[in-house]
Formats: sequence, C-alpha cells, structure tokens
Amino acid sequence: MDRHIPPVGRWKLARRAQQMTHSALRELLKVTERADMISFAGGLPSPDALPLARIVEVTQRILSTDAIGTLQYGPSEGYTPLREAIAERFTRNGSPVRASQVLITTGSQQALDLVARVLIDQGSRVLVETPTYLGAVQAFSQYEPNFEQLASDADGLIPELLSPAQLRGACLLYTQPNFQNPTGRRLPLERRRQLARLSLETGLLVVEDDPYGELVYEGGPLPSIHSMAPDAVVYLGSFSKILAPGLRVGYLIAPEDLMVKLVQAKQASDLHTAGLTQRIAHQVFTEGFLEPHLHALQARYREQCAVMLESLGMHMPPGVTWSRPEGGMFLWVTLPSQLSAFDLFEAAMQAGVAFVPGAAFYAAEPQHNTLRLSFTTATTAQIRCGVETLGRIVAARLS
Amino acid sequence: MDRHIPPVGRWKLARRAQQMTHSALRELLKVTERADMISFAGGLPSPDALPLARIVEVTQRILSTDAIGTLQYGPSEGYTPLREAIAERFTRNGSPVRASQVLITTGSQQALDLVARVLIDQGSRVLVETPTYLGAVQAFSQYEPNFEQLASDADGLIPELLSPAQLRGACLLYTQPNFQNPTGRRLPLERRRQLARLSLETGLLVVEDDPYGELVYEGGPLPSIHSMAPDAVVYLGSFSKILAPGLRVGYLIAPEDLMVKLVQAKQASDLHTAGLTQRIAHQVFTEGFLEPHLHALQARYREQCAVMLESLGMHMPPGVTWSRPEGGMFLWVTLPSQLSAFDLFEAAMQAGVAFVPGAAFYAAEPQHNTLRLSFTTATTAQIRCGVETLGRIVAARLS
Repeated sequence: MDRHIPPVGRWKLARRAQQMTHSALRELLKVTERADMISFAGGLPSPDALPLARIVEVTQRILSTDAIGTLQYGPSEGYTPLREAIAERFTRNGSPVRASQVLITTGSQQALDLVARVLIDQGSRVLVETPTYLGAVQAFSQYEPNFEQLASDADGLIPELLSPAQLRGACLLYTQPNFQNPTGRRLPLERRRQLARLSLETGLLVVEDDPYGELVYEGGPLPSIHSMAPDAVVYLGSFSKILAPGLRVGYLIAPEDLMVKLVQAKQASDLHTAGLTQRIAHQVFTEGFLEPHLHALQARYREQCAVMLESLGMHMPPGVTWSRPEGGMFLWVTLPSQLSAFDLFEAAMQAGVAFVPGAAFYAAEPQHNTLRLSFTTATTAQIRCGVETLGRIVAARLS
Repeated sequence: MDRHIPPVGRWKLARRAQQMTHSALRELLKVTERADMISFAGGLPSPDALPLARIVEVTQRILSTDAIGTLQYGPSEGYTPLREAIAERFTRNGSPVRASQVLITTGSQQALDLVARVLIDQGSRVLVETPTYLGAVQAFSQYEPNFEQLASDADGLIPELLSPAQLRGACLLYTQPNFQNPTGRRLPLERRRQLARLSLETGLLVVEDDPYGELVYEGGPLPSIHSMAPDAVVYLGSFSKILAPGLRVGYLIAPEDLMVKLVQAKQASDLHTAGLTQRIAHQVFTEGFLEPHLHALQARYREQCAVMLESLGMHMPPGVTWSRPEGGMFLWVTLPSQLSAFDLFEAAMQAGVAFVPGAAFYAAEPQHNTLRLSFTTATTAQIRCGVETLGRIVAARLS
C-alpha cells in the first residue's frame, strides 16, 4: 500500500468529500495488526468464536441446492427468507415486525449510511450520546449535519435532561442502548421507557443501533426502544458480532413509510447485498444453531470480560476508573485528567499493547483522558499480560 | 411484499430523498419474473453461463485454507491479492496500473455511488451519453447534479461536437464505451483517442464504466480510454457479467490522488466488501480459469445475439431499425416514431414477452419509440419465438 498519497489538488471535490477524513480507528487498527501485538484495539470477534465448521457446511448446502438463486441478481430489499426469519424472531420476542419492514444491508455500516442519506440534510440537527460510536459519526458526517452531544452518564443518555424543545425539529437521535461502543454501558429500562415516550410525544426519530444486544453476560436482555415505540424507531441489527463480520450482513427494521425511501437508497448504493452471504446468515436461524452458539459466545466473552476487570483491579493505580459492562465487547477506562490517552498509546504500542484512545468517539469536544479496551479479541492470558503492562505504564506516568 | 406503502408524511426527509424514485427498470423486472415469460428485459447472465462447479470448488478451498481471513473484518480498499491480480491483468494488457489504484466495490453500482459521492455537489454539471445507463443516472441523481445529454449517434458520443467550453467546469463525463447499456453500441478507436485528448486538454474527469468489455464477439477488443489518459479517467470494472452478479464484486481504478477520498467514502459506506465473495472473484485469476470461461461465454452470447439479429430481420416490419452489437448483452430497437414502446410493452407482456422501454435510459428528454432487448438471458429457441411475437405486435400496430 502506498502510504504517501499526494494531496488532492487537481479535482474539484464535492464539498462533502473535502470534509471526509480517514477513520482514525481503522488507521490505528492497521498499525496494531502486528502479530506480536496484544490487541485491545479492534472490535473484532475472537477468531476462536467464529463458527467455521458450520459456515463451511451451510455454504456447501446453499451452493448445492440454490446456486442460481445465490449467484444471480436479487431483490434490493434482501433475500426474502432472511427477512422473514428476522421478522419472526422479533415477533417471537414480543416485538411484532413484518418482513416488509426488514431491509438487508451490507453490514450495519451501510444501514447507518442509508438512514443518513434518507434523513440528513446539510445543517440538520443530529443528536448523539457522549461519547458515541465513531462509525456512525463517520457515516452521518458525509451528509453534513450539525451534531449535538447529549448529556450522558455511566448508564448512557439521561432523558430527564432532554427538553422537548431540543428534541423537536431534530433530524434524529442516534443511540446504542446495549453495551455501547465505546463505553460498554447499557441504558436502563426506565430510561428506555422515557426515551420512547419522548420520541412519541415529539415526533423525533430514534435510530437504535444494536450490534451487541445478543452478547449479554449479566442481568438478561432488556427490551429494545423499538419494542416500546415501533413507529418512531429505526432499529439496526448485525450478524457481524454473532456470526462473522467478514460476511458484511446487517439489517434495519423501519416504519413502512420510511422503508420505501430506504429501499430506493439501497438500490442506488449497491443494488443488493451478496446472495451468498445473505443465505449464510439465514442459516443461522435454522436447525437450532443460534441459541447454543450465542451461549458459547456469551460464556467465552463473559470470562474474558471478567479477567479484564480483575486485571484492571490488580494493576491500575488509584485514580483510574473503568466501566463494568454487562455485555458487548468493550470497556471504557478513564485516567486521571492530567494524563492523555494518546501519550499512553505511544508507550503502550512500544510495549506491544494496543487500544483506542477515547477521543476518537466524541462528535465534538473530545475527552483526552479516556480509552476503549476490547476484551473479545485477546485470549485471557493476553488480557492479564496486556493489562499488567498498561497498568505499569500508567503508574509510571502518575509517579 | 407490501406493494401499497403509505406516502411518507410524518418524516422530514432529506431533500435528496424527496427526489429519489424507484428504478422503473427494477420494478419492471419484478413483473417479468413470471416463469412462463420470455425475458429480454433484465441484464442477467444466462443461468447456464454461471460457472457453478468452479464457484463451489473454490469456495470450499477458500474456507478450508483462509477461513479466519475470510470471516473477519478486512481492509476498506479490498482483499490485497485481488487488487494485485486486477492491477497485473491491466498492466499485462498494456495499461499499467498499480494495486494501490484499485478499490474493490460492492458491485459496480457502488463504484458509481462512490464516484458521485466524492465528486458531485448540488448543481454540478454531469455530462452523459444519449441515451445513457439508468443505474448511473440513479446513483448520480442522489447528489443532485444537472445532467447534460451529449450528442451521440449509432457509434456513441461524438467528440467533434464537444466544445472545450462545454467540458471545462463540468464535474465529470460518464460513458460506457463498450457495448453500452442500453444501446449495445461501441465507441470507435478514433473517438476514444479524441475523448482522451479532450479530457487531458480540459482537465475533465472521464468515468469509463466497462462492465461488458470482456464480452466481445466481433472485431476484437479496443483499448480503453483509461489506457490513453490514465491520469484523467476513473475506470469501473465488474465481475457481475464475467462471473456472477449475485457475488456483488466490482472495482474501480482511479488516479492515486482521488483514491484517498474514494477509500474514505467506501469506509463510510459499508467498511469493506464481503471477504468471501472477494476471494471467490480472486480465484477467477488463478489456474487459467478466466480465458476459457470468457471464450465459452463469448461463443454462447455471440450465437444468441446472432439469432436475435436474424429473428429481427425475419419478423420486424419495415420502418423498424436496430443496433448490431459487437459484444455485450443488449441491442436497441427504434420503432417508427408514431409508436410508443410503452404501448408495445403492455401488449408484449400479455403475450408473454418482456423488454424494457427505452425511455428509462435518458437523463432528460426521453425518446418513447425505443426499446432495449437483452439477448443473454433467454435461450435461442425463446429468442426466435419472442422476437416473432414482438414483430407480430409491432406489425399489427403499424397496419
């Protein structure tokens, strides 16, 4: 790869392109791909948790029974049996959804792009958590909204601090209520109810992004905001965390009156998501695969999370705090305010440990003394060793 | 599918979404999917031409040798060996390309979207052929340009009629020089040279869309505009026609100074194209598969094209004319001006024959007496029968 690309000078770029930047996160990830690195940086599933044998088996079956359907052009809305299976699962779990409300996307990132494309004009007001998911900021930014960071605490958004005046006229409110990327926090039931109520009262569209909802380790699942206000919520789901991210299969569930525009945007974006990967995702719903696979994933990540929490307790000096996730892939560390996670990053990389500085996750006014640690990619032995290293570096800087 | 979706009233849509429409073509295609229909409508490869056994075999090999790489997140630029193989093939064919100039896309449709996203502002001047490819108009329209239809004849764009004043300040010129969709026409060598020269002189960016370039049946290949002005052209290629459209793998080749922005747009769109389908496409370049497969495809489609031309000659009444494609998937029929292809469409559908009215393929001022016929999906027996039916309907309307 050519890392020194000349500046764009000859072409008159669209205004949105002049403002585009590389994801700092993905650039960081490239650096952290060294084989000898202990990585707490990426939001990658554990390689051991990918259901390889199952994927090999179902791929063979798909190609031997439905090869033409798999390889020809398909509908923009997605593979019908997959849309039906998603609708059935939601309906069974108490949140009635019709297949006609489900749009299959090329990963959840595309769902973010489609929602933004259909809803955001230049200057639209987009409400986000503090901090918030970097990939959403990146997708939305292309359509040039004004971001407003909402008051948030260790449990997420604080609905009491949202005024109806603030919500009215906003284009959308974006939230990850389950085990948020980057903080790992989960929005409590009562706050979900308040948010749903506010949304119904003010006509505000909530974009509920839920890639980690199935990865719950403590306390059982909580009902989605979508289940409380289905007509006011676009719900985004993904197979990246429960199956495999390289398949690039996600979905969104939207009120029917938004679907028509989202499908048009999908059609103009890439016609449809690959037939083969959609069918592989569909197989997840067959023959009792999903529940045992989820249980195995939950058991694995629960342990990795526990080991990271234990290691932080053993090795971090006083003044450092962190979240205690009940699910997902991430936890969030706050350093004493005189420390910068960027300085720590350099030293940690030299010592062979990678993480993502938290400043990347703010739509505005970043906090520099925060960092995101993923506990899903590294083994428990690596987690112990890597956190000890981080603790030593932090302690040295504080003393 | 719910075909009667309520109008979008509750949501304040982005301006671009208010202007979006469903592709008339894709809506038509749904109607024409009846099993008893002879379809000249879709641009679908012949099901018999899909290399099923090969795809099954390479998929097994990929999953048994590189499953983790296939299933984890990958780079936004695309799978490196695929980018390298594309660059090597171009370089070998006399058009030097570096792998760092190749971006893998989720089908060619995404390449159109990314180019538009990076280059088109509201009101930008976008120059297109007359008629032009519907999917490009659809992708570009989202970014609200002003389209300018360029003078074109049976050979395509007429460079002598392009003034430097017209080209200067235009955002891009979009063309399919090889076996254009919808007309099947091919831009002659001298016109390619003139266009390349004009582009270099005026600084105009040419978007050269070439999904059909490998499907050449008469006269051998012509050099691309990209090969004549690599610094002024974004070239779009696709595996949809030479391998399988359902894989959704395409690519673009761009000057390095545009690549950086195109990759950022790709990252925000869907992070990356599916690892599995990229690797399947890569296998096309191994073990001498591509050339014999292309020869078989060419032989098949050459015959189907010849049968359609012969049948048109036998069954169409005087006053009807059509293009004589040297490759690709389509030919273009012009009816006497008092006939409308839409009227013909209704009657043909009732008689069990589908095509696409040509009016769909104009960025402005559609001609209603034109139609696009695809000769790749139907068998030769169906082609004979379907063209006879069409000829009978046209003759009845003329008499």
